[in-house]
Amino acid sequence: MEPLFVAQPLLPDLADFQNIVAEVWRTKTLTNGGPFHQRLESELERYLDVPTAMLFNNGTVALMAALKLFDLPAESEVITTPLTFAATAHAVHWNGLKPVFVDVLPDALTIDPAAVQKAITSKTSAILAVHVYGTVCEVDQLQAIADQHGLRLIYDSAHVFGTTINGRSIGSYGDASVFSFHATKLFNTLEGGLISTNKASDKADIYYLRNFGIKSEDEVISVGLNGKMNELQAAFGLLNLPRVPEERRCRSELRQKYEGFLTGLPGIKVQLKQPGVTNAEQYFPIIIDQATYGLSRDDIYDRLKAKGIYARKYFHPICTDFVPYRDYPVHSIRNTPYVNTVKSQVLCLPFHSGVTDRHVAEIKDVFNKAA
Amino acid sequence: MEPLFVAQPLLPDLADFQNIVAEVWRTKTLTNGGPFHQRLESELERYLDVPTAMLFNNGTVALMAALKLFDLPAESEVITTPLTFAATAHAVHWNGLKPVFVDVLPDALTIDPAAVQKAITSKTSAILAVHVYGTVCEVDQLQAIADQHGLRLIYDSAHVFGTTINGRSIGSYGDASVFSFHATKLFNTLEGGLISTNKASDKADIYYLRNFGIKSEDEVISVGLNGKMNELQAAFGLLNLPRVPEERRCRSELRQKYEGFLTGLPGIKVQLKQPGVTNAEQYFPIIIDQATYGLSRDDIYDRLKAKGIYARKYFHPICTDFVPYRDYPVHSIRNTPYVNTVKSQVLCLPFHSGVTDRHVAEIKDVFNKAA
Repeated sequence: MEPLFVAQPLLPDLADFQNIVAEVWRTKTLTNGGPFHQRLESELERYLDVPTAMLFNNGTVALMAALKLFDLPAESEVITTPLTFAATAHAVHWNGLKPVFVDVLPDALTIDPAAVQKAITSKTSAILAVHVYGTVCEVDQLQAIADQHGLRLIYDSAHVFGTTINGRSIGSYGDASVFSFHATKLFNTLEGGLISTNKASDKADIYYLRNFGIKSEDEVISVGLNGKMNELQAAFGLLNLPRVPEERRCRSELRQKYEGFLTGLPGIKVQLKQPGVTNAEQYFPIIIDQATYGLSRDDIYDRLKAKGIYARKYFHPICTDFVPYRDYPVHSIRNTPYVNTVKSQVLCLPFHSGVTDRHVAEIKDVFNKAA
Repeated sequence: MEPLFVAQPLLPDLADFQNIVAEVWRTKTLTNGGPFHQRLESELERYLDVPTAMLFNNGTVALMAALKLFDLPAESEVITTPLTFAATAHAVHWNGLKPVFVDVLPDALTIDPAAVQKAITSKTSAILAVHVYGTVCEVDQLQAIADQHGLRLIYDSAHVFGTTINGRSIGSYGDASVFSFHATKLFNTLEGGLISTNKASDKADIYYLRNFGIKSEDEVISVGLNGKMNELQAAFGLLNLPRVPEERRCRSELRQKYEGFLTGLPGIKVQLKQPGVTNAEQYFPIIIDQATYGLSRDDIYDRLKAKGIYARKYFHPICTDFVPYRDYPVHSIRNTPYVNTVKSQVLCLPFHSGVTDRHVAEIKDVFNKAA
């Protein structure tokens, strides 16, 4: 059997893309907000149902730009979760701000609002919450806390492309939301990212942040970086976007198959079902409690790997395990932060349309033998 | 006549690129240092004749990473030139450092070593010099100053891809050199950049800066961002690199044609010839002295534009004209910094293989009528 990986990139039809390449060759417009870029940005604005959706070259650069959008004071504190990809904390740090890590909620694994409350100091300027694995944050509680303390609320939405809460787009919550279109994401532009906000008036400022602060041939009005996505990637995205629903449908079916044999197993928890929330179908995380189940997350990972099936210990390590943040505490309402337990229990199973019934049977076999 | 622009991107053969796209579709490897990325990086290491050449998604991100490489103290001062693209100053500022602007040398238009000396304070941590328009800096003097004061010396080499000084690669000078492969550059990867250094031991650290500080599946050892170039861009670059010599030859011929009618004109200066330096043929800048020539840079720009020929007032505005740096002085050995005079005199003429003899005749006509 071919090795099976946790993700497999969604690709446009090859001939369609080759035709679009020919079109780029004709126009000779390779970047700087060309026609494909403009079209993709418009389509994503519609898709995400937000007044402002601005493309970036990757999610990390988008996150750095989003954090810059609000003129947070230098060295002020940004409260975030350690259960996230490195980029979340690094973007804060690179921007001259201080990440402050707080615990996550059991089951949901999103940032714990009570822990956020506890971590707020006079230096706190923002909350950077992460909709992790597709599970959405406690958006109302977080907004209330932000409002009460005059904090900015920014979401890392890398895992929730297309999610809605009671019909409202995930990209419209808080002050800004940052998406990733990396190859591992359901919707991808090879590398890519996006900032969405609920205010049309943010468009200009985000544009400047993306393009060196250039307002016109004669004016540079702010400090910006280069966050531009090129035309080939934008065209790739344009062709990929219509393929998202079918890929998502396949993953929903796969989710049901996985849940079919996992839900009954003592010591295994599948992803929380959140009422009113559509699942973006980005990841399929499970929590393995060794005390009840008998085997550890790492045991299952190794047994799957022995069959050529690569699950992912995601997120392992967590941010507070990284060398630069090792001395940073995890603020929690518990004596022992829950995140320090769950980080050794979470496993993301292969989750894409390339996972066949035979793969599912192999995976089921590993879990059943273990139980 | 079709409008003629200052730059026209060099493109690979369409069919060759379409074939390579098919190869990417077969491997499904879209980014994260895939095979095309590895090959392009190796080829550029050879091309630039340096022990370390690390690809980035664009020159600005590469510059931000290069500045981070040396752990410059927060808010320390980085001496640079205002006669550069916005990215140079913005990268310094975004990284939490303070750009300090100093004057340029007459004729060369590169940073004035005497002005650098004058601007050094106890807070200075680095010199960020720019090889502007292809004219190289006073590399020996700058290195001596850096050594004397214990400063890092970083070069913005966006305009000097392929330049050598007495046979030595421009990418090997100073502590690091940053290239841009933006569409407007002779060698382009749509968007792209590179850091070169003269030390093989820098490779690992630059790799971490480019890829979130990830050392292994279990270790994140430093604060990094996402500077990864994707596979389509790397493949584009691989096919473009062999086309560079022919494009450069065309531009060298064009340079001779331009110089043929410009060299004699009173009040017009063409680019400095530097003994032992190969010209990268990135730009064709001229300096127009209105007092002698009769017409201003802007007059010539307008007259060319009226014919559909778009020259570029490059760099206009200069960094100290930008809103964020308006209050920053330009340190100079003169009463009036030379850069404040020359910024209204510099014009870059269209410079690429798409400029025909007919275009040259039209441009010549504008200059001759003016004289």
